[in-house]
Amino acid sequence: MTLSTSPATALQTMRAGTPLVHCITNYVAMNIAANVLLAAGASPAMLHTPEESADFAAIAGALTINFGTLSPNWVDGMHKAIDGAQAAGKPWVFDPVAHYASPWRSGIARDLLARNPTILRANASEVLALGGGETASKGPDAGDEVVAAEATARALAKDLGGVVAVTGAVDFVTDGTRAVRIAGGSPLMPLVTAMGCSLTCLVGAYAAVLDDPFDATVGALALFAKAGDMAKDGAAGPASFQVAFVDALYNLQPAALETVALSDA
Amino acid sequence: MTLSTSPATALQTMRAGTPLVHCITNYVAMNIAANVLLAAGASPAMLHTPEESADFAAIAGALTINFGTLSPNWVDGMHKAIDGAQAAGKPWVFDPVAHYASPWRSGIARDLLARNPTILRANASEVLALGGGETASKGPDAGDEVVAAEATARALAKDLGGVVAVTGAVDFVTDGTRAVRIAGGSPLMPLVTAMGCSLTCLVGAYAAVLDDPFDATVGALALFAKAGDMAKDGAAGPASFQVAFVDALYNLQPAALETVALSDA
Amino acid sequence: MTLSTSPATALQTMRAGTPLVHCITNYVAMNIAANVLLAAGASPAMLHTPEESADFAAIAGALTINFGTLSPNWVDGMHKAIDGAQAAGKPWVFDPVAHYASPWRSGIARDLLARNPTILRANASEVLALGGGETASKGPDAGDEVVAAEATARALAKDLGGVVAVTGAVDFVTDGTRAVRIAGGSPLMPLVTAMGCSLTCLVGAYAAVLDDPFDATVGALALFAKAGDMAKDGAAGPASFQVAFVDALYNLQPAALETVALSDA
Repeated sequence: MTLSTSPATALQTMRAGTPLVHCITNYVAMNIAANVLLAAGASPAMLHTPEESADFAAIAGALTINFGTLSPNWVDGMHKAIDGAQAAGKPWVFDPVAHYASPWRSGIARDLLARNPTILRANASEVLALGGGETASKGPDAGDEVVAAEATARALAKDLGGVVAVTGAVDFVTDGTRAVRIAGGSPLMPLVTAMGCSLTCLVGAYAAVLDDPFDATVGALALFAKAGDMAKDGAAGPASFQVAFVDALYNLQPAALETVALSDA
Repeated sequence: MTLSTSPATALQTMRAGTPLVHCITNYVAMNIAANVLLAAGASPAMLHTPEESADFAAIAGALTINFGTLSPNWVDGMHKAIDGAQAAGKPWVFDPVAHYASPWRSGIARDLLARNPTILRANASEVLALGGGETASKGPDAGDEVVAAEATARALAKDLGGVVAVTGAVDFVTDGTRAVRIAGGSPLMPLVTAMGCSLTCLVGAYAAVLDDPFDATVGALALFAKAGDMAKDGAAGPASFQVAFVDALYNLQPAALETVALSDA
Repeated sequence: MTLSTSPATALQTMRAGTPLVHCITNYVAMNIAANVLLAAGASPAMLHTPEESADFAAIAGALTINFGTLSPNWVDGMHKAIDGAQAAGKPWVFDPVAHYASPWRSGIARDLLARNPTILRANASEVLALGGGETASKGPDAGDEVVAAEATARALAKDLGGVVAVTGAVDFVTDGTRAVRIAGGSPLMPLVTAMGCSLTCLVGAYAAVLDDPFDATVGALALFAKAGDMAKDGAAGPASFQVAFVDALYNLQPAALETVALSDA
């Protein structure tokens, strides 16, 4: 296995640190993302305006940027936050939601990608399109399989000098050299809005406390997959699944992560 | 019956199409509206800024506009989105939340209404006030009965050349000529915030796949009413009702809609 | 006891009035705060833009301001709303979320505090820092115990000529002369995002219908504490707790408040 820190140890470390995570995320995701972080053991803070985002990114443990419900003032706040995080040596995570949805959005994504995110988390359609490929999706829901985006993800990770995580039914994480797949979760997960956005924030929580962004990403994705496994039994549909999922993040003990379906790729 | 497409067939058609719905809605509603659409079988996308709203409205199946938490930049984005939708021949749905709450808001509502929405969805107080009548409400919660707004709704539908839906304990839908009432749901529904806003987005999902906006509106309202019926049994209060309601949208089969309480008006 | 209106009577009065509460709150809190108010018996309205906030604050029963996800345009809307509320003789409640998180935010907090809020509701870290003290927190989660902030709260209440509520495991409310402590709730409450923000809105609902802001604050906090007590038994984690909590707000009868743990301080 290519990990130096197992998902179980990563969870213990994250909970022990209760990292303050600066989340700039979209309006749809804010509430559920904050609840995901609190349940898992981190401390989320949502603020975005350019007047304070650099100052706050410097004192938080990590910065996460998701541009779902974008507007120009928020873009300024994102760049200022990256300035603050990078000056303070803090990792930042990028989630380019539906970056192909409009020419304007595509340009913003290119500019943010040029700021060298520590970790990129996206669905298969978003990764394919970042690599210049065709995607079956026009909006935020993925229209492609993760496996179709693996080669693009490897190339992108090398270009960025960072970690790329493609999430879906089976997740793929690579830093260009190492690569793993993580299975688990539930088919109900894509029917709950902002689960991917929440996962991006959780990746930030792990990146705040672990030195290796690859291990951090795998740790966060393993926790999400296992909590999804735990939640699906009692769920009668997407809403009761969401409740059970957040409860599972809270109740999940590190030892449970020893059975997560993790394999080298 | 005045419908050419039954609610059961409408639901099948909507799910088969998984329509991409461009929702410009308020901050309170965004998360629950997205979850309602995903559970019902559609694909929601929330974005609003004038830099991209016209481009995206042109590629989505329908546009929905709700102006709950309004600000000037969003108004620009709404008008640009309508430009994009109309140029591409896509339907758009208008939800004028508490348009009487301030003189500024009333003016914005008039301007948007002048853009000829395909469908107007509102509560009784909002419809009465649009017709120049008195309303018992000052905020977003309805203070009037649907029946009191039926005549205004008929007149408004004729003026607009569109469909008007007045929702409440018994809904009323008219295109100025045809009219139906739909009963069902639960008294807990008005105690869950943004249910009406979410319904507006769902009307957009149906309008994206059905040619007749009247049938589309009735289909969406019938699904909402029946899911409300299904959810009320196990609910201990508004929050458990909301969970059960979203689960019901996911589990509801078209045949269940054959018993919805639908009558010509 | 220092109260002239008991929490039981206060709840009856609030429900009888169904007060319209103008809530300017952050993006994370909007949905859950609206649901808390609806379940408890009030009528929330979320709008913020300077073009209408003064007009609406004048017709609502009370105004609440929480500046979690702040930006300059919202600050203008907050000040205009205070203008409207004060001109109409309506109470306003201030919730200075993580005001120490950046120098810019601290300045905004000072300006808003200078507008003489009727009631200030905050966690212990926020109150300590407002009094010029040190706090263990950098973000929105409290890092200090309520008891450590009681003396600061008393001094602040005298300075403001208003009520100060410090909420936590045991709440403390003072108007500079009178003071009470309220115990109850659940350790899961700080793991649900925006519970404090929602409480701020609920304080506004009580302040809209009761003449004495001290009684209003104690009434709202007593309802929150008792609903937390009721919700914790069936909860499997923070998400099922939140569902049970909102249901409890809806089901709770005034007589249940006679056993709330309230004591003079």
